[in-house]
Amino acid sequence: MTLPVYIQIAEDFLEKIAIGELAPGERLPSERDLSKSLKVSRMTVRAALRVLDNQGLLVRRTGDGTYIAQPKIERQADKLVPFTRKMKKLGGKIASRLILFEERRAEKSLAEKLNIPLAAPVHYFQRLRLLNQEIVLLEACSMPKERFPDLQKFDLEKRSVYEILESEYGILPHHSHQSLEAVSATEYEAELLRIEVGAPLMLERRVTFDDKNLPFEYGRDLYRGDRFRFMTEVAPLE
Amino acid sequence: MTLPVYIQIAEDFLEKIAIGELAPGERLPSERDLSKSLKVSRMTVRAALRVLDNQGLLVRRTGDGTYIAQPKIERQADKLVPFTRKMKKLGGKIASRLILFEERRAEKSLAEKLNIPLAAPVHYFQRLRLLNQEIVLLEACSMPKERFPDLQKFDLEKRSVYEILESEYGILPHHSHQSLEAVSATEYEAELLRIEVGAPLMLERRVTFDDKNLPFEYGRDLYRGDRFRFMTEVAPLE
Repeated sequence: MTLPVYIQIAEDFLEKIAIGELAPGERLPSERDLSKSLKVSRMTVRAALRVLDNQGLLVRRTGDGTYIAQPKIERQADKLVPFTRKMKKLGGKIASRLILFEERRAEKSLAEKLNIPLAAPVHYFQRLRLLNQEIVLLEACSMPKERFPDLQKFDLEKRSVYEILESEYGILPHHSHQSLEAVSATEYEAELLRIEVGAPLMLERRVTFDDKNLPFEYGRDLYRGDRFRFMTEVAPLE
Repeated sequence: MTLPVYIQIAEDFLEKIAIGELAPGERLPSERDLSKSLKVSRMTVRAALRVLDNQGLLVRRTGDGTYIAQPKIERQADKLVPFTRKMKKLGGKIASRLILFEERRAEKSLAEKLNIPLAAPVHYFQRLRLLNQEIVLLEACSMPKERFPDLQKFDLEKRSVYEILESEYGILPHHSHQSLEAVSATEYEAELLRIEVGAPLMLERRVTFDDKNLPFEYGRDLYRGDRFRFMTEVAPLE
């Protein structure tokens, strides 16, 4: 059985990407140029590129062109794997930048999430997370101040938050309620993450509980859409 | 303990949204107008709106204004709940439109996913899914033709795919491998979903297996980012 031409072309590109002849970040020739050099119709070129696009291998920038995508970082969405641990496992060099650290008062919905009184003081901080010098994640975190007095004393740029919680306060994350949403970057977020305004981001909201089922953290993290993929194993419905 | 002014204002808005005085789709006055009418600084208005925004209650359209968001539809990301069943449970009126139905040949990565020979014929179809007359989801589905001969005979607009698979072929979905990514709508997708080019979409890729652990479906679904939220219960890491 012969493969259709567009699939042969797609397979050719896939091979080139696999062996590194086409590297992440590299720009593809235009559809017209590809059509000329491959001696096929533009429709065939388009169909071939669609195969690559469906596999998440291309980044299309409006009015600019088509590029080979960076391989996305895979996060398991159904296991509590702290960013630091996951990235170290992948052999990445990670770093953090503290953008903001302040005291806030819990409004109703936050108070309910953290099971604290309305207007109780919370630590609120934002951090940028870098992987191999590239900014990939903007974290915003709220924690009850009463439970974590003097949190500001610890180095949130050099240390992992969960490591601080464990060694300074004896608290270990046990499980969490989490949601994922596709959103667009606001101006503020785009500037911090060094991406375009409106670029796709994965918003992860998270309430994390300790082993006594007490919530101790509300997280609102923004992952660069072009850098992350969230994996789940989906169990059958009972 | 007194609440800061911006939180009082935010709570006021939250109450208005809760009792329906501010309805989904309604436009908020500008920051300047709110600052005048509430007799507070624009910074305070901005802080109050940020509380609502953090809860996903606002939609900001660049150069247009800020609107009260539709409440998002919650999908469980770690349970296999077919769209049809979930939406019916929510009391929604659902409908499907078949956009495309064709035979394709499996390229290498699809053949591997579906565990079929390279270039084996597959049914490929795209459907739009509507909830209460609103287009919310663009499905693309590939299934091995050998396993589902004559699939085109069945009414994919009136019937659920999983219902057809069960009653016509005796196949029940058992579990799936799934991933979620935040992406931007291409021109083609935006036109079909009636959203703006570049609007955020949740891309769900899915390989579904039967109870003998044989893959029978590769799905590539695009959910409107402003209409869906994916929930997970996150278990502790062993």
